[in-house]
Amino acid sequence: MIGMLRWLLILCSMSPLFAQSEEVRAMLKNSEAVWNRGDLVAFVTDYEDSPETTFIGNEVVRGGTKAILGRYRRRYPTREAMGTLVFSEIDVRPLSAGLALATGKYSLKRTAAGGDDASGRFTLVVRKSPAGWKIIHDHSSQAAP
Amino acid sequence: MIGMLRWLLILCSMSPLFAQSEEVRAMLKNSEAVWNRGDLVAFVTDYEDSPETTFIGNEVVRGGTKAILGRYRRRYPTREAMGTLVFSEIDVRPLSAGLALATGKYSLKRTAAGGDDASGRFTLVVRKSPAGWKIIHDHSSQAAP
Repeated sequence: MIGMLRWLLILCSMSPLFAQSEEVRAMLKNSEAVWNRGDLVAFVTDYEDSPETTFIGNEVVRGGTKAILGRYRRRYPTREAMGTLVFSEIDVRPLSAGLALATGKYSLKRTAAGGDDASGRFTLVVRKSPAGWKIIHDHSSQAAP
Repeated sequence: MIGMLRWLLILCSMSPLFAQSEEVRAMLKNSEAVWNRGDLVAFVTDYEDSPETTFIGNEVVRGGTKAILGRYRRRYPTREAMGTLVFSEIDVRPLSAGLALATGKYSLKRTAAGGDDASGRFTLVVRKSPAGWKIIHDHSSQAAP
């Protein structure tokens, strides 16, 4: 029984779709770490640097990493406003080869000066490029406090 | 010049990606009309009836059209709460064959008893099935009043 389970696990882990999900999860894990060392410039490199890239939040941003960096800088002007980010409830659904849908919850631990704790949900459409998985669309919405 | 433009238009309209976008737009147009005659049961048939289908709003709903119908009925219990729906700023981006990303704005015209006007943004991942284009993921967020 244990042997069979082990084989099933090995089979699953060899599946290309499973591998894709793991790569996207690794990207998000790294993204969290980059945010938590306050590096917005590195954070936005996870977005595809293309005029087609879109971000739906309180405002709609269309454009490459520069436009998206501008949006993050306006919304998180200080290290305190950035707080500490944790992603949870992450679900990665393969859509087709090199294309996936990632959803989850974001939580920001913040001081009162930073704007207090905040959380919300995100939907990311990610595409594999030679430079790795890149976000081509982000819809993030904050939960009502 | 006019002749050339006409030819370009004809070429564009024959492109399969252009055709996909038009089909998704037609689905949304129909969806708006169905909502505005108060028919939630028909409205949710635009979602893929699969346990994989997801809806991110104030709550996260996972499941087929029955689960999504339940969500709409809780949120829009009366004809007045449904109000009159208008979609705008619609953008349809083909992702791969039979897969597209549709984004836009929704606006509800409502009476005070219905909950007053409301609007927000949506992200839809849609997939072509034998029964037409179906929503496999919806992220809808309401704008702050």
